[in-house]
Amino acid sequence: MNIGGKPYRTIWPTADNRAIEVIDQTKLPHRFEILRLATAEQAAHAIRSMIVRGAPLIGATTAYGLALAVREDASDEALDRAHAFLLATRPTAVNLRWALDRVRSAVRNRRRELRAEAAWCEASAICEEDVETCRSIGEFGLQLLRDAAAAKPGETVNVLTHCNAGWLACVDWGTALAPIYMAHDAGLPVHVWVDETRPRNQGASLTAFELGSHGVPHTVIADNAGGHLMQTRRVDLAIVGTDRVARNGDVANKIGTYLKALAAKHNGVPFYVALPSSTIDWTLRAGEEIPIEERTETEVTQISGRLPDGTVTTVEIVPQGSAAANPAFDVTPARLVSGFITERGICAATEAGLRRLFPEFSKTDQESK
Amino acid sequence: MNIGGKPYRTIWPTADNRAIEVIDQTKLPHRFEILRLATAEQAAHAIRSMIVRGAPLIGATTAYGLALAVREDASDEALDRAHAFLLATRPTAVNLRWALDRVRSAVRNRRRELRAEAAWCEASAICEEDVETCRSIGEFGLQLLRDAAAAKPGETVNVLTHCNAGWLACVDWGTALAPIYMAHDAGLPVHVWVDETRPRNQGASLTAFELGSHGVPHTVIADNAGGHLMQTRRVDLAIVGTDRVARNGDVANKIGTYLKALAAKHNGVPFYVALPSSTIDWTLRAGEEIPIEERTETEVTQISGRLPDGTVTTVEIVPQGSAAANPAFDVTPARLVSGFITERGICAATEAGLRRLFPEFSKTDQESK
Repeated sequence: MNIGGKPYRTIWPTADNRAIEVIDQTKLPHRFEILRLATAEQAAHAIRSMIVRGAPLIGATTAYGLALAVREDASDEALDRAHAFLLATRPTAVNLRWALDRVRSAVRNRRRELRAEAAWCEASAICEEDVETCRSIGEFGLQLLRDAAAAKPGETVNVLTHCNAGWLACVDWGTALAPIYMAHDAGLPVHVWVDETRPRNQGASLTAFELGSHGVPHTVIADNAGGHLMQTRRVDLAIVGTDRVARNGDVANKIGTYLKALAAKHNGVPFYVALPSSTIDWTLRAGEEIPIEERTETEVTQISGRLPDGTVTTVEIVPQGSAAANPAFDVTPARLVSGFITERGICAATEAGLRRLFPEFSKTDQESK
Repeated sequence: MNIGGKPYRTIWPTADNRAIEVIDQTKLPHRFEILRLATAEQAAHAIRSMIVRGAPLIGATTAYGLALAVREDASDEALDRAHAFLLATRPTAVNLRWALDRVRSAVRNRRRELRAEAAWCEASAICEEDVETCRSIGEFGLQLLRDAAAAKPGETVNVLTHCNAGWLACVDWGTALAPIYMAHDAGLPVHVWVDETRPRNQGASLTAFELGSHGVPHTVIADNAGGHLMQTRRVDLAIVGTDRVARNGDVANKIGTYLKALAAKHNGVPFYVALPSSTIDWTLRAGEEIPIEERTETEVTQISGRLPDGTVTTVEIVPQGSAAANPAFDVTPARLVSGFITERGICAATEAGLRRLFPEFSKTDQESK
């Protein structure tokens, strides 16, 4: 998508294919900086420190990370070591394991001298497929927005989203935001309520930044406000992304998603989750099996922002001596979800719904894992 | 309660009774500053700018504000003018009107030369009664915490609270926090999950400050985290305050309260609202009649905090060009509330429950208003 009129992706190989470059998302929205990652260690650091984040982009980055590791040492032992090292960077997004498994499978049965090239190609394929997947999600989701617009002719369709599941979370387009970009481009009057998404404020910093860069009308709100907006009929639809979906349809997503899903259910607001199928963890029966990452308390006690002179600084917002806790995700029970928007269409948030769209994941397959 | 070992109230008359002094709550937790208010205009400014906040303290401050106005001009016209002027400072807390009506009634039938003294005495009485009211709320609420502790011997009782309904929101003790102070002082092992309460962060700045000053164990969390903590059985009880209760039991409180009440209901966590009876608006049938204040968007787009050298600064956290919305309160339907903790005991969050404790408010009385 565009930033300042120039098209970008979130991740791309350098011209000499020796490294990848990414947008440093910890600097947004205050500064736009590009970072070069030339080793698996640098890729791991980028994931751990959230220079890149969002389940699909974590998958793409880790795939290139493993490819960079194979280039240094193509032995089976090194491959497994790098796989384990990269897998440990973050616990919740299942795309991480999915992408690592895919790159490892692509090289495992090849001769050593061909492995580096095969791994690089597989990482590149993961990125290209992610772009196509998100485009499809956008097209299927667009129909929901068309229906919402048709139900209130001449009025603006108000969509609430949480965290950032836009193109910055993917390679391009985004998951939850892809339908919104397509609706906006198609001339539908769409407006987005952007949950700021404390503690890291990915909504206020990333979602507002990318919507603004594309010209989509939006309003940033405190995470506390969404329930009131739904009660007062100012939300037509909620769409969020996800880091991992259990096969019963339970959804792990950024902390606070569950509260919005409860409010949506309570107020009859459709609540959709947009996801590439790589986010479905067929090995997990239900959401309580999804590991929830605990992050550092400084994400709660400190916040960064812009001073009037444009410099960025970090301030403490909690009294000295007060502890903080920082669970990064929560699980939204499937029964609160109106449906999944996937690259193959929209389905019910149930095992049957998922299997209808993705019949290739047989029960045997999932149970053998 | 104590700050640095010294007992304080939030509001007190100066030694010469010419003015009142208050703690400037916009400076907490970074600086402790006392402000002198010598005119009704200064009192109104303190309420509007949230130097003082919290429904009971708004009531106490506005009572002194009207008393200061009467001192300048004790005519009926001036009295009504000051009443209207002070009533317009904030729309949601009903204690504001309650306190103003009480002071006006106390002076209306007196000779002019006695009015200033009568108004000052009435304001002082409102403060003293608030302290006693909060003490009673604390004692009744303490039993809930004793019961919770008895249900898990030897373990810590975890209470979640939203915003600040502590002594800083009242004259002393607090409403929602009064039972917690009493439990802590009685040796019960109590720990408080403190919602930071964006956008003004009254939880992180005021509740954490006052709990820390009193030595009560607490942990600050993003507002998004409460649902997950309830799902994972880490909250035994939620207690919040309120700015206005309709006679059917619907509760207006700080934005985001409704989301926590939904999560509590969904997870079987008792959800109590602590209030002095002055917060009940018998003239309102239901919560949708409560006016919800919209505050400035800079409360969402900017945040203040401490730099490493101790100075306090304000930073922008939203991209330039992004709009923000800031509804300050929401309405929690009575059916989500386990009970009200009042100065006369605990009752169901229903009209019948309220009438049982406060039979003096007859139907005729309320309908005539």
